[in-house]
Amino acid sequence: MVDILHRVGIKSSTTEVYDALTTAEGLAKWWATDTQGEGGDLGGVLRFRFEAGGFDMKVLELQPGARVLWEVVDGPAEWVGTQVRWELSQADDYTVVLFKHAGWKEPVEFMHHCSTKWALFLMSLKSLVETGEGAPDPRDVKIDNWN
Amino acid sequence: MVDILHRVGIKSSTTEVYDALTTAEGLAKWWATDTQGEGGDLGGVLRFRFEAGGFDMKVLELQPGARVLWEVVDGPAEWVGTQVRWELSQADDYTVVLFKHAGWKEPVEFMHHCSTKWALFLMSLKSLVETGEGAPDPRDVKIDNWN
Repeated sequence: MVDILHRVGIKSSTTEVYDALTTAEGLAKWWATDTQGEGGDLGGVLRFRFEAGGFDMKVLELQPGARVLWEVVDGPAEWVGTQVRWELSQADDYTVVLFKHAGWKEPVEFMHHCSTKWALFLMSLKSLVETGEGAPDPRDVKIDNWN
Repeated sequence: MVDILHRVGIKSSTTEVYDALTTAEGLAKWWATDTQGEGGDLGGVLRFRFEAGGFDMKVLELQPGARVLWEVVDGPAEWVGTQVRWELSQADDYTVVLFKHAGWKEPVEFMHHCSTKWALFLMSLKSLVETGEGAPDPRDVKIDNWN
């Protein structure tokens, strides 16, 4: 098993970041404009649709201002069964976000791509919370010949 | 052992990307403005200095247009002994860069930070080669309360 790890710091309260991770409205503004479902309900399913496909995530854990855990229940074969974990904490004027997309079976080329895309989407989340403007799909930053 | 993985695609020849990875002049334009040493000599040492510290990398492998491998011989304790590998290939109009920073002992918080920073520096490399303008330290994109 191999994991994608990232860390960003967002000049905001943990509450604002938590809201952007647990509401379809928030998620639509930094990740996938076409986001539906209930991110704030344990056991609920979030449906993210991108130009190139989509992911369904089941909400496994919610600790307001501190922690969110999703499991991928539908999407690309490499993603199904993996988990996406968000841990929030306050440091100085920042909400520090520790991100982990865990449980990839193999470090395939698609995982390299997703690691870089996650970094750019985390910067989109940071930008949304700090400035009100994110860069969600389909206005996301393109990184390679895949997207 | 855990690894940082990334993938970017750069609209250019593999030769241009290889040059940006193997000359101090190229490296200074997308990673650390203060770069010294010989990136094109097997066994040579590259010295990268940042606002917050620095890294010395020994050049272990060089395959023009295809592969570069460095080993960290001085720098933060978590980095020493790790390896940074670049694999280049042509796909459509792109040079695809597969990046691996391998051999971290533990997935510490600093590794999360470095993973995100590497993604932004890879985007700086892409920008440099495609537009002539990168974002090297100290003009690099800041991601959190550490840098």
